[in-house]
Amino acid sequence: MRFEGVFAALTTPFAPDGAISLPKLGENIGRYNRTGLRGYVVTGSTGESVLLSFGEIDRIWSTAREFAAPGRLLIAGAGVDSTSETIARARRAAGLGYDAVLIKTPHYFKPLLTPTALEQHYIAVADASPLPVLIYSIPQYTGISITVDWVARLAEHPNIVGMKDSSGNVQLVSEIIHLCRPDFNVLTGSSGTLFYALLSGGAGGILALACFLPEAAVELYEAVRAGDTARASRLQFTLLSASRKIAGELGPTGVKYAMDCVGYYGGNPRPPLLPLTEEQKRTVEAVLAESMARQKVDHLGVAG
Amino acid sequence: MRFEGVFAALTTPFAPDGAISLPKLGENIGRYNRTGLRGYVVTGSTGESVLLSFGEIDRIWSTAREFAAPGRLLIAGAGVDSTSETIARARRAAGLGYDAVLIKTPHYFKPLLTPTALEQHYIAVADASPLPVLIYSIPQYTGISITVDWVARLAEHPNIVGMKDSSGNVQLVSEIIHLCRPDFNVLTGSSGTLFYALLSGGAGGILALACFLPEAAVELYEAVRAGDTARASRLQFTLLSASRKIAGELGPTGVKYAMDCVGYYGGNPRPPLLPLTEEQKRTVEAVLAESMARQKVDHLGVAG
Amino acid sequence: MRFEGVFAALTTPFAPDGAISLPKLGENIGRYNRTGLRGYVVTGSTGESVLLSFGEIDRIWSTAREFAAPGRLLIAGAGVDSTSETIARARRAAGLGYDAVLIKTPHYFKPLLTPTALEQHYIAVADASPLPVLIYSIPQYTGISITVDWVARLAEHPNIVGMKDSSGNVQLVSEIIHLCRPDFNVLTGSSGTLFYALLSGGAGGILALACFLPEAAVELYEAVRAGDTARASRLQFTLLSASRKIAGELGPTGVKYAMDCVGYYGGNPRPPLLPLTEEQKRTVEAVLAESMARQKVDHLGVAG
Amino acid sequence: MRFEGVFAALTTPFAPDGAISLPKLGENIGRYNRTGLRGYVVTGSTGESVLLSFGEIDRIWSTAREFAAPGRLLIAGAGVDSTSETIARARRAAGLGYDAVLIKTPHYFKPLLTPTALEQHYIAVADASPLPVLIYSIPQYTGISITVDWVARLAEHPNIVGMKDSSGNVQLVSEIIHLCRPDFNVLTGSSGTLFYALLSGGAGGILALACFLPEAAVELYEAVRAGDTARASRLQFTLLSASRKIAGELGPTGVKYAMDCVGYYGGNPRPPLLPLTEEQKRTVEAVLAESMARQKVDHLGVAG
Repeated sequence: MRFEGVFAALTTPFAPDGAISLPKLGENIGRYNRTGLRGYVVTGSTGESVLLSFGEIDRIWSTAREFAAPGRLLIAGAGVDSTSETIARARRAAGLGYDAVLIKTPHYFKPLLTPTALEQHYIAVADASPLPVLIYSIPQYTGISITVDWVARLAEHPNIVGMKDSSGNVQLVSEIIHLCRPDFNVLTGSSGTLFYALLSGGAGGILALACFLPEAAVELYEAVRAGDTARASRLQFTLLSASRKIAGELGPTGVKYAMDCVGYYGGNPRPPLLPLTEEQKRTVEAVLAESMARQKVDHLGVAG
Repeated sequence: MRFEGVFAALTTPFAPDGAISLPKLGENIGRYNRTGLRGYVVTGSTGESVLLSFGEIDRIWSTAREFAAPGRLLIAGAGVDSTSETIARARRAAGLGYDAVLIKTPHYFKPLLTPTALEQHYIAVADASPLPVLIYSIPQYTGISITVDWVARLAEHPNIVGMKDSSGNVQLVSEIIHLCRPDFNVLTGSSGTLFYALLSGGAGGILALACFLPEAAVELYEAVRAGDTARASRLQFTLLSASRKIAGELGPTGVKYAMDCVGYYGGNPRPPLLPLTEEQKRTVEAVLAESMARQKVDHLGVAG
Repeated sequence: MRFEGVFAALTTPFAPDGAISLPKLGENIGRYNRTGLRGYVVTGSTGESVLLSFGEIDRIWSTAREFAAPGRLLIAGAGVDSTSETIARARRAAGLGYDAVLIKTPHYFKPLLTPTALEQHYIAVADASPLPVLIYSIPQYTGISITVDWVARLAEHPNIVGMKDSSGNVQLVSEIIHLCRPDFNVLTGSSGTLFYALLSGGAGGILALACFLPEAAVELYEAVRAGDTARASRLQFTLLSASRKIAGELGPTGVKYAMDCVGYYGGNPRPPLLPLTEEQKRTVEAVLAESMARQKVDHLGVAG
Repeated sequence: MRFEGVFAALTTPFAPDGAISLPKLGENIGRYNRTGLRGYVVTGSTGESVLLSFGEIDRIWSTAREFAAPGRLLIAGAGVDSTSETIARARRAAGLGYDAVLIKTPHYFKPLLTPTALEQHYIAVADASPLPVLIYSIPQYTGISITVDWVARLAEHPNIVGMKDSSGNVQLVSEIIHLCRPDFNVLTGSSGTLFYALLSGGAGGILALACFLPEAAVELYEAVRAGDTARASRLQFTLLSASRKIAGELGPTGVKYAMDCVGYYGGNPRPPLLPLTEEQKRTVEAVLAESMARQKVDHLGVAG
């Protein structure tokens, strides 16, 4: 199975009292089902997974499974620091009918998490997981960086089928693509470099930005697939600010507010994440307005 | 209540099958009860808390409560990324009769965890916690650094009674001690700077090294309290290598092997932490031998 | 004047006694004159400028001026920590008939070099320099990172005509290109991302790799300009390892040995830079062989 | 020869037109001669050496030599990135009758400056220098960190007689002191940890703070030497804020303004360093006032 296309890294909606809101999650997914998104990552970083109990995660996974349209791929954010707990979560995701698990690099004991320790973690998880494994690297949150050679070794495991790289390091992504087997799915988590990752032969993107601009991300993907590099480049341009200033600098909190702005349910994050300040809200609104204005110009240009 | 003296940051013993071994924990605590340790931190970083489920943590807390001798202070490592989950854990520790909670800085969403966000986390926890709160900063694992002024603001909260600083930054510790109220308990988590922290007016230490060299750490503490600076300085010297090469560079894994070497039950860590290599074991043994030889010389010198 | 195309970041040849070898420099430039390189940067980072006296730099600049073929653009690496010394060097470069100066971010007093301090440095230099100024950011050496907004402010100065970015951050480069005026020349210093920088609208590259693989870099540039994205992508692929493993990880030392391998004069770097070990030499040879084999395949494929 | 006591890391005075002001340097030294300072470091980091030409440095060295009172030790900040240039400067300092050279770690080519490369640099300099060599580590400016074992290896060289550590890492300093030969002079560059470094057996300090609070630093040194730990601890307390907020956070610029405040000639730094803002000046004034008030209290307490 290939993991190609644009996936949304779903947010986790909370009700005003702080409890998870499964109905709002279902509504959001219902709307995403009408876009060209290839599937969904549930309880990844954008889903505030580190702020959820496993009981909550289980209910979120079930709900997403229920609401995702047939044919949409479902990927469970199942990686935690503990190897055995990661395996337990992967098994649960398999039981719920997910298509793959996304396994974040363990990161707490940084000086002890050598390449060898990390490699053995992934091998143990991949050996035990009933579902295919995608490696997940997000050094801006974990403080753990990976190398081309390290990924290439893991890509030889039959149950490690790809990776999500959120570092935004285009050269790293390119080298991984060229060094690993052709069906190793390299997905970027950095919407500001989606165009470049696709041109390098990347399989697609798992994007927080796709929570609030799903169509734009899908259009970019399809433009590259159609060989329309010039258009894809223009579309990438329309996403640069939103990528950096919303998904990057404001994280799940910014993504949720942007969702509220465009008609999805965003809501507040869980503490210790703070709601946006009024100034931050104005920034999100301005970035969205500019991004959508540019997309409209591009569409008109294409039409005309 | 004051938190003064040397506390051991307890390891979590695992049986060969990977399950937590409550009997071994009880045995270790039984032995520590015969030392001059002031108390125990249960499920801190050295306790591999990030690799434990809350169900396991609950049983560990209960066992430690059962085996700790009367008068020993018990501090629960209760901090996780989520504010509400941290509060829930603090309440459970209170229910079990603990004396305080040690609350690690949240750290996953680094760019979003501004000083304000971190401050609001601690205030929310301190407001809700039935137990007094100790702030816990360990930037080498979390990637989050704190400042003097930030601590000083939090030290005004009546339920925030102290902190554990594991950065090893002596000037930071000194400034915090001098800037905060006199009964704010500043404990170091860095056994290589215990002497200096105490000379600055620090309340004591919460030390992984105290798992395998409890008497040496207590002697150093008592030498400072007795005004015997020269002896304290010599004792600090005997601990420098063990601090850096075992507790620092090898973390819980090294601490556990050192415990095995001196008669406690250490055992293996949980994956993804790897057991020590043979070479690492030789290093631990050599460091321990040198440290104990130096302590013996010091004792003979004092006796003679 | 536009700074478009591929520029070589020239090395500084040393004789076996450690003195600069102007004849070897002249010979190298003579050969480069027969390639499609647009010009040369003299005494940049790859030129080991921090290991040269200004007297030596002056003679190197004169020699490069003498040997560069007419029409090749000459850019002087003129930036040092001191603003006034940077200006003095820019004036000297102007006196020698150079086309522009490349001005590295000052970096020694890191905590004091705020965006404002750095901005005032560039404005002072640009105001006083008779030559157009290119900003030069290379955080892996300087520890100083820049932002899109900071560059955009400086790009409004009429004498700041572009920048060289060696961070390899493709999103940063893209945003700068889109935010700055159309004739602001954004050149990448990262040969592993040349393709992507050009697709974003970048003006070209100033590359250490062009010292030993000038034709390959120029071909990539021309393929993008000709709209042959597929071929450019393949050519980029042939350069990834050489970019990372030679220019990146081995710096000027690796570049010089690679030059020796392909018929230029490389020679040894100045201490404290060490000559390559035998193992490092084998790595360079293997990377070069693989890179050239891939280029040959590509040429045959195109021919056939 | 031993390098024990408190040394001032002298600033370089500039006239309003930006030229070095040798008369003001002479006046400052004349005043320092009346304090208990053991000697002076000339053209170190605080002397803005990276912003000076070697011609200027030569004149500064000559002037300092001329004005330093007999018996004061003179140490020349002679380290630059180039090994051969460092040697040339060390020879010049010897010709001028200096007592030692302070050799900063080379730092520009960070990924290439392995422990081995740095070690060979120091050995080459120590072999060739007519003057004894002090290693100088200041990672906050250079980005280069050193280890205990690395220093211990270099301390075996007969012409490497000590080091200045400005990292403020007290455990590192302690370990170096205990691991190196007894006459290896370990001096701290961190005035906020002087007390702790001395208690560990350190030889003294080379301090920017001694430019504006020379007596206080000397008193602290003498209190430790006299065995009056309690008084030394109180004196250290009076210096903590000045150390961090002036010498640390504001660097040479803050030190110069503090000198102006207490009657020395400070003046402005060279661009790109900016003069203090009005708010920063108020901070310096407040810190100085508080520091001197505390010292007065301490003196009265001792007197009474």
